[in-house]
Amino acid sequence: MSNTTTNKKIRIGIVGYGNLGRGVELAIAQNDDLELVGVFTRRDPKSLSILTKSAGVYPMAEVPAFVGKIDVMILCGGSATDLPEQTPACAALFNCIDSFDTHAKIPQHFAAVDKAAKAAGTVGIISAGWDPGMFSLNRLYGNCLLPHGNDYTFWGKGVSQGHSDAIRRIEGVADAKQYTVPVEAALEAVRAGTNPVLSTRQKHLRECFVVAKPGADLAAIEQTIKTMPNYFADYDTTVHFISQEELDRDHSGIAHGGFVLRSGTTGVNGETKHVIEYSLKLGSNPEFTGSVLAACARAAMRLKASGASGAFTLFDIAPAWLSPKSGEDLRATLL
Amino acid sequence: MSNTTTNKKIRIGIVGYGNLGRGVELAIAQNDDLELVGVFTRRDPKSLSILTKSAGVYPMAEVPAFVGKIDVMILCGGSATDLPEQTPACAALFNCIDSFDTHAKIPQHFAAVDKAAKAAGTVGIISAGWDPGMFSLNRLYGNCLLPHGNDYTFWGKGVSQGHSDAIRRIEGVADAKQYTVPVEAALEAVRAGTNPVLSTRQKHLRECFVVAKPGADLAAIEQTIKTMPNYFADYDTTVHFISQEELDRDHSGIAHGGFVLRSGTTGVNGETKHVIEYSLKLGSNPEFTGSVLAACARAAMRLKASGASGAFTLFDIAPAWLSPKSGEDLRATLL
Repeated sequence: MSNTTTNKKIRIGIVGYGNLGRGVELAIAQNDDLELVGVFTRRDPKSLSILTKSAGVYPMAEVPAFVGKIDVMILCGGSATDLPEQTPACAALFNCIDSFDTHAKIPQHFAAVDKAAKAAGTVGIISAGWDPGMFSLNRLYGNCLLPHGNDYTFWGKGVSQGHSDAIRRIEGVADAKQYTVPVEAALEAVRAGTNPVLSTRQKHLRECFVVAKPGADLAAIEQTIKTMPNYFADYDTTVHFISQEELDRDHSGIAHGGFVLRSGTTGVNGETKHVIEYSLKLGSNPEFTGSVLAACARAAMRLKASGASGAFTLFDIAPAWLSPKSGEDLRATLL
Repeated sequence: MSNTTTNKKIRIGIVGYGNLGRGVELAIAQNDDLELVGVFTRRDPKSLSILTKSAGVYPMAEVPAFVGKIDVMILCGGSATDLPEQTPACAALFNCIDSFDTHAKIPQHFAAVDKAAKAAGTVGIISAGWDPGMFSLNRLYGNCLLPHGNDYTFWGKGVSQGHSDAIRRIEGVADAKQYTVPVEAALEAVRAGTNPVLSTRQKHLRECFVVAKPGADLAAIEQTIKTMPNYFADYDTTVHFISQEELDRDHSGIAHGGFVLRSGTTGVNGETKHVIEYSLKLGSNPEFTGSVLAACARAAMRLKASGASGAFTLFDIAPAWLSPKSGEDLRATLL
């Protein structure tokens, strides 16, 4: 499992150029051993202006023409409809990385990518990012180190796209942003090692900034939001009506983050308490996620070089394989 | 890299039965797939009473007689003189785990264990624990995900054995405990993403509880502590003189912990800030370290089954290999 360092850069393609695709492009530029070859888009390639002058922009249909010219494809589409199709199709031709984040459907996505990648002798790393991704890793390490304990995951403060979309679909709403906010008192109780049993309402608040259409019934909108099943009914929700200008000015950020805690016990009778906490404060959700995906490109190449094929997640990747440095260097400087 | 689950327990030996050895024994009892076979000691075996009734206590000289009866030896001696001898010697016979923690000597310890283990076809996992160990892992992940950034490690609040020993060697001192305490203001500055350059003094305080011998010169002791090179001179140090009864009653705890932060930037011109924070609040340093070592026994068996031999660290271990659960189970429940 030692690292091999070569002077050859890993040639990368980005499929889909939204916020995440741009985040991956920025991450590649930070890593000397990675090189962006091309961006593949469903839009008219001429309409796209990318940051990397040495890379091309191509229509999606040209992906297969890059076999042999690209080592790893990083798929930056959505989990709802893009990735379930794109990752298996792409894994039939290339090593692939995606950030598939529909937790409930991960087993079936893994199986589809595994089948395509094994048949083609490629490596597909799925569900990389921060949750799933770094948060999952911390849940796993926490469970291994403290088998007697409880897991806690808190998200935020950050915008939930799904909840914002749900508000926008309400009659009379022109635009909206919804923040998921962890409840500080709940976090403190977990940190204190009290192992609280927390209801949905006790863990997160929902804060909504809504632009109403002219003449809309504000009370009705607020009531519809606060009673919406699954999305808001189980939470303490606050609704603020603001102008489109205010929304654009104050709520266009893409910051996010959260906390993963493992609270566990050891000792003869569980008398010794331990708390492990991992937290992220991300200035940009897509730029951080893009950075995780870029690091995984290295791991994909090392898995492939080791003779592996099929689907993998961060659970299966030796941490050193995410690094450009040699094992010797890592042991001397970071261990 | 998929996990294999068998019904056969992993048979473990513990070499050295101090605080860490007892911590490993407690951890083994929490894991159904691990089984303690024997404890090996330099003391008279009859003088040792261990918790695990099904395991034996044997003199150190009998270690070689357990080839074929023990799958993994967990070495619980000290890094100064025990482990540099014991781990390579043991790796010539068994898969081994240790918590070697003299950071500067890790490369040479790794080389010695690697040589012995490769010659014997065994696996030796060194420097497992929390620092080196989980803290190192978080430094590594942080560097891979945010290549443009700074690392910060804070230790404490917890007892430093080395600093306590240094005080005890001063003339007129009967006993002492020294706490390393992270400076809250420094932690907050790092969390805020300001990337401060912190001096030794700005990162940690040193708090000393000292029992003086009857008639000792307290002012001289305090002065000697505060001006001791390397240990205290570069820190803000407070000295409290207390009675032996108070020391035994209030300062016999073995709690410890600390913080690893990675503060980095992404974006076109590094305009986006991110902060990753990992922290441990450990009720018992040796019990938590023992839990890490026990989880590594599983990884040693999987490395061995994969055909690997030689020395490894947590950097080289796929996280899933620390878990008793299958890959399918982990993906469905923790990803």
